[in-house]
Amino acid sequence: MNPQLEARLAGYKKLIQGRLEEVIRKGEPVSLYDPMRYALSQPGKQLRPCLLLLSCEAVGGDPEQALDGALAIEVIHNFTLVHDDIMDHDELRRGRPTVHHRWDENVAILAGDALLVLGYALLARVDSRHLPAILRTFSSAILDICEGQALDKEFETRVEVSLAQYYEMIEKKTGRLFELACQAGAMLGGGEEQTSAALACYGAQVGRAFQLQDDLLDLLGEEKTIGKDVASDLEEGKKSFLIAHARHTASPAQLMTLAALTERRPIEKERLTAIIALFEEIGTLAAARAEISRCLEKARSNLKVLPQNPAARDLEAFIGAIAERTF
Amino acid sequence: MNPQLEARLAGYKKLIQGRLEEVIRKGEPVSLYDPMRYALSQPGKQLRPCLLLLSCEAVGGDPEQALDGALAIEVIHNFTLVHDDIMDHDELRRGRPTVHHRWDENVAILAGDALLVLGYALLARVDSRHLPAILRTFSSAILDICEGQALDKEFETRVEVSLAQYYEMIEKKTGRLFELACQAGAMLGGGEEQTSAALACYGAQVGRAFQLQDDLLDLLGEEKTIGKDVASDLEEGKKSFLIAHARHTASPAQLMTLAALTERRPIEKERLTAIIALFEEIGTLAAARAEISRCLEKARSNLKVLPQNPAARDLEAFIGAIAERTF
Repeated sequence: MNPQLEARLAGYKKLIQGRLEEVIRKGEPVSLYDPMRYALSQPGKQLRPCLLLLSCEAVGGDPEQALDGALAIEVIHNFTLVHDDIMDHDELRRGRPTVHHRWDENVAILAGDALLVLGYALLARVDSRHLPAILRTFSSAILDICEGQALDKEFETRVEVSLAQYYEMIEKKTGRLFELACQAGAMLGGGEEQTSAALACYGAQVGRAFQLQDDLLDLLGEEKTIGKDVASDLEEGKKSFLIAHARHTASPAQLMTLAALTERRPIEKERLTAIIALFEEIGTLAAARAEISRCLEKARSNLKVLPQNPAARDLEAFIGAIAERTF
Repeated sequence: MNPQLEARLAGYKKLIQGRLEEVIRKGEPVSLYDPMRYALSQPGKQLRPCLLLLSCEAVGGDPEQALDGALAIEVIHNFTLVHDDIMDHDELRRGRPTVHHRWDENVAILAGDALLVLGYALLARVDSRHLPAILRTFSSAILDICEGQALDKEFETRVEVSLAQYYEMIEKKTGRLFELACQAGAMLGGGEEQTSAALACYGAQVGRAFQLQDDLLDLLGEEKTIGKDVASDLEEGKKSFLIAHARHTASPAQLMTLAALTERRPIEKERLTAIIALFEEIGTLAAARAEISRCLEKARSNLKVLPQNPAARDLEAFIGAIAERTF
């Protein structure tokens, strides 16, 4: 990663984590606040709040103005993770037991709810001039995320999911929060409407690339690096890019081989290798990589409206960091 | 019920239900929006939005100014019901299958989440002068409600819960939303701080009385009227007023009888009659009724700060309607 970007992200993450700990330090009953603290205490990559702060600075704003928005988006992201993990029966997240696995489902439902509310409580602290638009933008994005999650769950029980349907789902489920981060950062930084809209497109494309990578990593990543079980998408019947693309491109014989290889669960290492080879043969892995490049190019082209400044350069470097992502 | 109050509530309910249907009419995927519409479509008593509108008018405001706040509180109340029903494994609500029982838990988690977000989206439409305070007040109240629900679940696995702990739990879980309704209505109506505070106290006391009645109705109500199974609190080990009071007042012999009577589940009709007689003998039912009267008296005394107007008179009549409540 570009050292300037690396230094900036490290600074942001320290700031965000410090403030988050202040926000959540107190609070009883512990049966509610301990799982909330747990969800927030092993920070992930904090890409969304970092993008929010970067977007604020890129339009000429002071990141202090956007900090509560950045905290809100990180807390709300964690709300979605806690509830999604229940719905997906996932037992590992960032290398640790998920909230519902460590406690129970009731605890996780309630901790997730309270994280969402805490996110809104943080939003209430943003500059009142921006508050109506910020509240509308956040709420509309989170509703879209719920819609994306509903589609994701619906697709699990469907055989046929087109690439268009797949893209609609990930645009809502993953892309929207990246889009929101960049748009809200620009709004809080006092950016003009056109600039905020361009940054929103940048975020949406970065988010889409990120989700395509996640779909690849489910197959190609290592458990230690991705912090969860390998091939869990395949085992849960998720309609990832891989499945949607292969169904639409593979020959009948290849589809039969794929069905046979993914039928029994769990999928052990030898079969995983065969599945990877099959996706390679179908052209799915190359198609995913090509689409990731296209998204990142589109993201880059949206940065043209920005003034020349270090944060704008870091948003460009961010594209490179996503491109070489292995996490 | 006082006919003036009855006419006013009927008008408010029609207004609220009509607008709610507009808000939720569209929306896809249906796997998300159908359960949301279902949760909102068989309206309950709508006490909270009605109290919000009444409080707005009582301080001299126009109920149109407060309508989005009223919709928000009704939608958010329904969010709490959908998630509480999952946590409590309740299969009936207002005489119909609960969302998780009719669909499944994943659907109910997500529909509840989306209802909460929809509530905030409605709040974003209130007059921007009031928005920062309204957003803070709502978020703080909903966090308290989550805390109250966490306490309620914690208490199920505890043997000993004092009356003070019981009161803390219901103040948060039930009282806070009534308090919020009255406070927010006064704020949106442009009421002065002192008046809003008095109306908040009025709401908190009405909410406390309402919960004590709910605790009594669990034992004394009829399934048809209360829309759920009789004695479900007892069966789930809920620490209602009845249990908290009896544990603190009954003789050791009475406690042993109570334990024996409530040991096997489900509780059939003959044992229910014996349990009611025992609570009567311990003095628990009389104590609950006395506490309800005390709360409603305190609520009434908080209305003194209001100007003389029809809405203020209806808030007073509301106390009478709660006192004679059988629903």
